Amino acid sequence: METQNGESGYVEILQKSQRPFNPLVVIEFTAGVKQAAIEWIVAKIQKSKAAGGAELDVNAVVMHHKQETVLYVGGSTERLLWAADMMDIKKEYRDGYHHEFSVDDVTNFRGSKDLDSFLTMAEKQKIILHELEAVRATEDDTAIAGYERFRLLSGNSIIKKYVSNGIIAKMYPLHDEEEIKRLGAEWYQLKKFANEQPIYQIRDYFGEKIGMYFAFLGFYTVALIPPAFIGILYLVTSWKSMYREAIFAVFNLIWATIFLEAWKRYCSELSFKWGQAQDVELNRSQEPRAMYHGTMDKNPVTGKPEPRYPKYKRSLRFYGVTVPVVGFCLMVAFYLMLGYFYLQAWADEVYAKDKTWLNMTLIYMPTAIYAVIIGIVNNFYRKIAKILNDFENHRLQSSYDNHLIVKLILFDFVNCFISLFYVAFYLQDMTLLRSHLAALLVTQQVIGQVREAMVPFIFVRRRKQQVDKVMQKEAAIQKVEYFNGEMDQTIQKQVNLESTMDEYEGTMDDYLEMFLQFGYVFLFSSAFPLAAFWALLNNVTEIRSDAFKMCRVFQRPFAESASNIGAWQVAFEVISVIAVITNCALIGMDPEVKKLLPSDISAVNIVIIFVAVEHVILAVKGAVAYCIPDTPKWVEIELEKMAFQSKQALHAERMAAASSQQKKLGDLLKLETRETSI
Amino acid sequence: METQNGESGYVEILQKSQRPFNPLVVIEFTAGVKQAAIEWIVAKIQKSKAAGGAELDVNAVVMHHKQETVLYVGGSTERLLWAADMMDIKKEYRDGYHHEFSVDDVTNFRGSKDLDSFLTMAEKQKIILHELEAVRATEDDTAIAGYERFRLLSGNSIIKKYVSNGIIAKMYPLHDEEEIKRLGAEWYQLKKFANEQPIYQIRDYFGEKIGMYFAFLGFYTVALIPPAFIGILYLVTSWKSMYREAIFAVFNLIWATIFLEAWKRYCSELSFKWGQAQDVELNRSQEPRAMYHGTMDKNPVTGKPEPRYPKYKRSLRFYGVTVPVVGFCLMVAFYLMLGYFYLQAWADEVYAKDKTWLNMTLIYMPTAIYAVIIGIVNNFYRKIAKILNDFENHRLQSSYDNHLIVKLILFDFVNCFISLFYVAFYLQDMTLLRSHLAALLVTQQVIGQVREAMVPFIFVRRRKQQVDKVMQKEAAIQKVEYFNGEMDQTIQKQVNLESTMDEYEGTMDDYLEMFLQFGYVFLFSSAFPLAAFWALLNNVTEIRSDAFKMCRVFQRPFAESASNIGAWQVAFEVISVIAVITNCALIGMDPEVKKLLPSDISAVNIVIIFVAVEHVILAVKGAVAYCIPDTPKWVEIELEKMAFQSKQALHAERMAAASSQQKKLGDLLKLETRETSI
Repeated sequence: METQNGESGYVEILQKSQRPFNPLVVIEFTAGVKQAAIEWIVAKIQKSKAAGGAELDVNAVVMHHKQETVLYVGGSTERLLWAADMMDIKKEYRDGYHHEFSVDDVTNFRGSKDLDSFLTMAEKQKIILHELEAVRATEDDTAIAGYERFRLLSGNSIIKKYVSNGIIAKMYPLHDEEEIKRLGAEWYQLKKFANEQPIYQIRDYFGEKIGMYFAFLGFYTVALIPPAFIGILYLVTSWKSMYREAIFAVFNLIWATIFLEAWKRYCSELSFKWGQAQDVELNRSQEPRAMYHGTMDKNPVTGKPEPRYPKYKRSLRFYGVTVPVVGFCLMVAFYLMLGYFYLQAWADEVYAKDKTWLNMTLIYMPTAIYAVIIGIVNNFYRKIAKILNDFENHRLQSSYDNHLIVKLILFDFVNCFISLFYVAFYLQDMTLLRSHLAALLVTQQVIGQVREAMVPFIFVRRRKQQVDKVMQKEAAIQKVEYFNGEMDQTIQKQVNLESTMDEYEGTMDDYLEMFLQFGYVFLFSSAFPLAAFWALLNNVTEIRSDAFKMCRVFQRPFAESASNIGAWQVAFEVISVIAVITNCALIGMDPEVKKLLPSDISAVNIVIIFVAVEHVILAVKGAVAYCIPDTPKWVEIELEKMAFQSKQALHAERMAAASSQQKKLGDLLKLETRETSI
Repeated sequence: METQNGESGYVEILQKSQRPFNPLVVIEFTAGVKQAAIEWIVAKIQKSKAAGGAELDVNAVVMHHKQETVLYVGGSTERLLWAADMMDIKKEYRDGYHHEFSVDDVTNFRGSKDLDSFLTMAEKQKIILHELEAVRATEDDTAIAGYERFRLLSGNSIIKKYVSNGIIAKMYPLHDEEEIKRLGAEWYQLKKFANEQPIYQIRDYFGEKIGMYFAFLGFYTVALIPPAFIGILYLVTSWKSMYREAIFAVFNLIWATIFLEAWKRYCSELSFKWGQAQDVELNRSQEPRAMYHGTMDKNPVTGKPEPRYPKYKRSLRFYGVTVPVVGFCLMVAFYLMLGYFYLQAWADEVYAKDKTWLNMTLIYMPTAIYAVIIGIVNNFYRKIAKILNDFENHRLQSSYDNHLIVKLILFDFVNCFISLFYVAFYLQDMTLLRSHLAALLVTQQVIGQVREAMVPFIFVRRRKQQVDKVMQKEAAIQKVEYFNGEMDQTIQKQVNLESTMDEYEGTMDDYLEMFLQFGYVFLFSSAFPLAAFWALLNNVTEIRSDAFKMCRVFQRPFAESASNIGAWQVAFEVISVIAVITNCALIGMDPEVKKLLPSDISAVNIVIIFVAVEHVILAVKGAVAYCIPDTPKWVEIELEKMAFQSKQALHAERMAAASSQQKKLGDLLKLETRETSI
């Protein structure tokens, strides 16, 4: 057995360390992985930076009965601070701004009294991830040890290759039990229901990307209050002006614009406070995704060797493959929808002719069949979208994400909204539109709530009991290798628990849910004014259930930085433009509204009037968006202050250096005169 | 007489200098200005920087017969280089990039072999202007010498106060006779007619702002070739498809979008090559306009004392005064247009009833009256716009300019286009629209050509002869004070000539002309496909006549930097959006086009089809604009390279400093452990 001769292997490679060991990140190998591969990477992780290693501390625990090896990775405070310096992590300086952390200036950073807790746990874990990924294959490393078939190219990130080749099954940072209890108490406890979300704590614990999502979710939910309030008001008051739908729709459209602009401002405020705003975007100098491939070349900015994939090839793949395939999928979704409506019409007809109980159940059959088929198609499409996105071979994770977002949005837009468009503008049946919209919105939300909140809650309770049982059994059968002192039993229990947790898949699905809801609320607001109310009701609980999921259901995700919500901002803005068109068309088609106009106006002129109104609303919308600055004034001033100060400092430095050089310029000038006279 | 006791005054203040004196900038005082004021500012200009002066060289020439004093200002190479360093002027470095010039690094800048010609003449003049304006009133300077009523506040720019109080009549940089001949030969000589403009030479001579205007003019003119070609093709070929107007219009609309996007790319390319692109916009740290006023406060970024004018007051003035006044002016222009059409209809009627010669002249009366009134109203409005803009009290010149541009655009848009809208969409008379459009476009261009090219040409010839005569007379009567050696007779003749030249009013009117032309060509292209051809014809000569004006008719303007065309980009883009709406409406109204559709389509559905087409074109336009990157790839790479390199340098520096500090961090950590153990 490979495990047996491996046992001594560790001892040879490792020097035992007496430093206190604080595990931060867990690496789980797939069961049955060759010992050589494990030993090789453990050695790489422990080796010094100079020798091409990560210079981090590792504890290895081997569970004999499952053939699984688990690594616990940590690092000394000194090592992590140096890495933070090299990674340009931003920390609060004594001047109150966020500056790139520098070890030789450490005493001027806030919170540097206690160096061990100067970096947050999330920052430490992010650093460890970065350092692990930065361990690269040298010229001599041609393949993963023990696996000749997994070739390595010089410069490949070894750990990424382990993950992509399935040798490493999971890699996740550990939760901070104390901190997560404190955060949970602030965030999702029922008694704090009316409080604001602890956005800054969330960011400290989960990083900027997830912090930004919850800030957006909270901001959007608050923004739903006025339309929800007016919707309720319309429902309960007897005031039934003919204009009410129109007034409500116009209010909603302008409100959506103001909300999106106000969010941009709030977002840039958070971005500044979190030290994310000052960066120039350096896309090309960023390292490519692990899966990016191409012929080896030099990076045009950094000069480092990296694969290069010409843009025209990507465009060819995009326009030649992605566009037709996605177009075909959208067509399929469209025809499915048509089929549903024909089937429904047929069922209605049958029931109308012969009102038996059997035929009554027939009425509900098309909806049920449609729901099932859509579910299957949707799953299938998501797989296709991912394959296409991989196939496009994007260099950066951010552009990969944005292209995937667009693919998912397109399909979900057609899937969820095309039937509404069909009812509204082809069938032109306002009653059906209202009931269809209400049914879609409310059922999707109820299903979502159950799936997201109830099911995981039950699972978590059951899982904990299981883990307790397993731990009792395992204590007897597991074989442990210690390199940095004995592992705490509570941490092992924690890892056993977190190992069974689901991996957090990123913010994509959460944003997508909000995006669809935003569409339901604003695209047809004149048809169903109560939509905002239902959405508000959903989001108030959504926030708490999402919070619970983050804290208790999922493995902790690695912190990622973000300065805005990326492609989603554009997606929401596009919906808000389409909403102007749909609402104007809906109101223009309403026979009630037409009655209000003088009777001698021709039908053509009525259409022209509504088109004119639509253009005016679009122009106002554009003007509002243009006039509201994207950054609050104080943030602008602070950013300028920083830029100005660094410029001044450069200037002062130059002047100091120049006083000794002044003679030099004089000499140069004299020299010149002499040369000319000669 | 004050001039008499002033004569000795100069001698007391000035030390005679033996350095070769090269005059660069001319300052002309108003006739009859008190000698004390002149002496005071001459002293300030000559004093050392440390003593609050400009440390520049001055020659004063007094013309007794007119009581006019003229100052010639220059500076030593050393002085100018130091100022260039402090002003962060960008020069080409040996790595090929533009970097902020630094005296102690001078040998690494390209062209530093010959330091006297290292800075271009335009740069030297720009530096002198900056240094003159940087001479500020101290605590002791309470008023302009000799004029107790012209109060000074500590920190006021003295020379700006001289200009705004009318003590200085003119201040302009001298032309470089040799260089302007060379530039002119490349630029507007008939034999070089087919050549490209020497954009880089223009930029070197006139600065980036004017260089950018001519680059835009040239780029736009070339972009007119395809629509002009198609317009001609339609005219000469017998192919008379019903769709031809529609095809032409759609081509034009997409072409306009591509042109504007392509210009943005070309613009950012120029901006990069001219060293303008790398700056973060530091608005708040820029010095306010000379005319900006408010209560004294501190600049929020630099901390320097400066007037502060709260934003709400400006908004109050803008929405409370500017908006109503401008709105009223637009109404007046609209009613004038209505009046014209009524008068014309009346005259037509009279002539139709009684076709006498007298009544025939009557037909042309309304147009003549309208033209005259519009001319007067336009002049009047420009004055109002300037007063309103001053009243709004903008802090920066750029925001002052942009607000003035918007005001002028609004009025000229109504003035020039509203009658076309009236004919197209109210009267719905396509024949009248075509003839009206042709008349407006062609007459405006002919008038413009005559005014801009012919008249100045004649003036310049006469002026030269006059100056020769004056010089002969003046040689006897002028009294000259020399401080830096005798003034060259040719330079004095040159100044006498340039003094009588018109001041160049900036690029505003030139852009406005192009803006209106762009509107004529694209707003109604389906009605008058030949518009692009006429515009092209005009611009080919316009470029040369503008070039001639710049070189021979106007005083040389001070070079100003610019990285784009500012508010004009937005203005052109807005027109290109409006053009989609107008063209779709025009084609939709065309009875010929309607005949092509199946006859069973209702009128309402025809309108809806055209609205749908319009929305699709707008969406395509938006997508095209979104998909074409605003910056060419190579510029992006270069910019990122620069940012990356400076980041790397910072890093390397930090690492070097850190090696000695590494112990320090270790000490800190040890200290901490000790403290905890105690």
